[in-house]
Amino acid sequence: MSNAPLLNDRLLRALRRQPVDRTPVWLMRQAGRYLPEYRATRARAGSFLAMAKNPDIACEVTLQPLRRFDLDAAILFSDILTIPDAMGLELCFVEGEGPKFKHPVTSEREVARLGVPDMETDLRYVMDAVRASRRELAGKAPLIGFSGSPWTLACYMVEGGSSKNYARIKAMALNQPALLHRLLEINADAVIAYLAAQRAAGAQALQVFDTWGGVLSPAMYREFSLPYLQRIAQELPRGEGEQRVPLVLFGKGNAAHLEALAATGTEAVGADWLIELSEAAQRVQGKVALQGNLDPAVLYGSPDAIRQQVRQTLDSYAQGNNGSREGHVFNLGHGMSPDMNPEHVGLLVDAVHEFSKR
Amino acid sequence: MSNAPLLNDRLLRALRRQPVDRTPVWLMRQAGRYLPEYRATRARAGSFLAMAKNPDIACEVTLQPLRRFDLDAAILFSDILTIPDAMGLELCFVEGEGPKFKHPVTSEREVARLGVPDMETDLRYVMDAVRASRRELAGKAPLIGFSGSPWTLACYMVEGGSSKNYARIKAMALNQPALLHRLLEINADAVIAYLAAQRAAGAQALQVFDTWGGVLSPAMYREFSLPYLQRIAQELPRGEGEQRVPLVLFGKGNAAHLEALAATGTEAVGADWLIELSEAAQRVQGKVALQGNLDPAVLYGSPDAIRQQVRQTLDSYAQGNNGSREGHVFNLGHGMSPDMNPEHVGLLVDAVHEFSKR
Repeated sequence: MSNAPLLNDRLLRALRRQPVDRTPVWLMRQAGRYLPEYRATRARAGSFLAMAKNPDIACEVTLQPLRRFDLDAAILFSDILTIPDAMGLELCFVEGEGPKFKHPVTSEREVARLGVPDMETDLRYVMDAVRASRRELAGKAPLIGFSGSPWTLACYMVEGGSSKNYARIKAMALNQPALLHRLLEINADAVIAYLAAQRAAGAQALQVFDTWGGVLSPAMYREFSLPYLQRIAQELPRGEGEQRVPLVLFGKGNAAHLEALAATGTEAVGADWLIELSEAAQRVQGKVALQGNLDPAVLYGSPDAIRQQVRQTLDSYAQGNNGSREGHVFNLGHGMSPDMNPEHVGLLVDAVHEFSKR
Repeated sequence: MSNAPLLNDRLLRALRRQPVDRTPVWLMRQAGRYLPEYRATRARAGSFLAMAKNPDIACEVTLQPLRRFDLDAAILFSDILTIPDAMGLELCFVEGEGPKFKHPVTSEREVARLGVPDMETDLRYVMDAVRASRRELAGKAPLIGFSGSPWTLACYMVEGGSSKNYARIKAMALNQPALLHRLLEINADAVIAYLAAQRAAGAQALQVFDTWGGVLSPAMYREFSLPYLQRIAQELPRGEGEQRVPLVLFGKGNAAHLEALAATGTEAVGADWLIELSEAAQRVQGKVALQGNLDPAVLYGSPDAIRQQVRQTLDSYAQGNNGSREGHVFNLGHGMSPDMNPEHVGLLVDAVHEFSKR
């Protein structure tokens, strides 16, 4: 069965730095609790994990925001921690505490036991969700697949969940760097296989979330996060020419490392809101597309404030990119929150298109 | 009654960028729960707030780390939220949730009601703690007084406590910027009066903690945090020449703003660990001293790892400062955590002195 032709290729063109009629926009965590229809689906499914592990429900939730808003991409509804879960760490969610692993990785023996999961058995539910979402989208917009970064996965795997100061993994980085590198190599192998499988299943763009790269000092980032992002950018097979599936390396707190990220071989870099997009664009010098970077909290602002901030973000990019809007994918600098107003999201999406019309 | 002569002036000399025999060192939150004697005092006092509000106990706790370690400064044991507490917001601590205000500031009317507290009545307990600590230190090391920054105080005042995404205050910044500026002006007036009173009571250096400046986009930082830090640096009276009480502007996530901070008129800037000290030193061009910036999590490392990281931090500063170690105060990039090992702290302090001997 072949998929429908893509009717809106703005995202893919912008990620390749090709001209588009208006700047494409999607929002991190656009499929989420701020949508009443999402909450209804979740209530029926029982839990976040039950939703993510059921391909039909994951597909339904992936499409929900595109029914409401004029978004230029869908992003697969899933979790960044599916890989370690499939490695046997057993992911669970404790209300109010975020993700936890029942079996965190704390010793050499536990690292030695880890292996790359089989993508079409252990992680079949993700690939089925990709296939279902791609089919249901019917070419309306491209589907983005994603993964956590090797470092960010390792944070959760070693800490056993969210962390305040990353004591365990930083102690490992300081005291057993070779062990941590072994873990990161396995994670990188798994991420590459995972993203390749999502591409094979139909994902048209791929994003790596290095959510916790920004907790590292520059020296530690260059040792423990960057080389593995580079491996992904170099080794992930993603086709050639117009068939090439573009890769986005997003990282919270990656402002200090934009030049290095632009040199990895990735097609695009995602930035958070702590850097002026004009500066980011100047620093990557047209080597990659940029995705970002409005402070998500702007969605708490009034309609006028949102429109003004959207315009500033678009103009900031152009200012740093020799006056051109090409090579920009509009997004937030981080994910949306459950208490945000859906009407504000629609307004933001429309403002991006209105203000960026060529 | 006059105070004893200062026997260790390394901190003050380094903050003035004068030569010293070795790099001075103190650690943010050096008086804290990682010390058994602190936990014992706290158990007797009943709570953090009871300790901070009792000048004798605050003095005792201020001195505790200096009895164990060869630290070059004491920092007053207190809280950054004493000012809004004295304004009537009523500070309390909920176990596991951090600081809370019983009466957060959410409306124009509530902002209009705020005033600068009287330092020798409403905040007398702080001034008494400064006087007691200065007396007890007996010149062994200088005493640092401190305050939260206007923006950081406003975050807690508007959010009512710690926050995940600063929804309320960012909404105020977007929708009612004039109201937020009124609040920030009052805070700045109060901070200036508070630090001036601490100086009058005997504090020999002063630090402003802009803990949450780093959650702002560059444009919002320049509008809502920086101008008030600048006002403090400009308007806070602190004496002349060798009598001048130096000011340190510390901020988490301030790497993007070092040049601007160095141009405020402050004597020193404190940096977190997300910037290479060599780069920070190059960027401030000798206009200010720099304080920082080891990742606190390094204290979870082995003794060898700690010593190596201390050496790297010292050398990084010198590398960016034309090969000279002058103008550097060694510190962590953020506060210590309760689960840290006191022996590692001693080892770190000694390593700083050993490796920086002129």
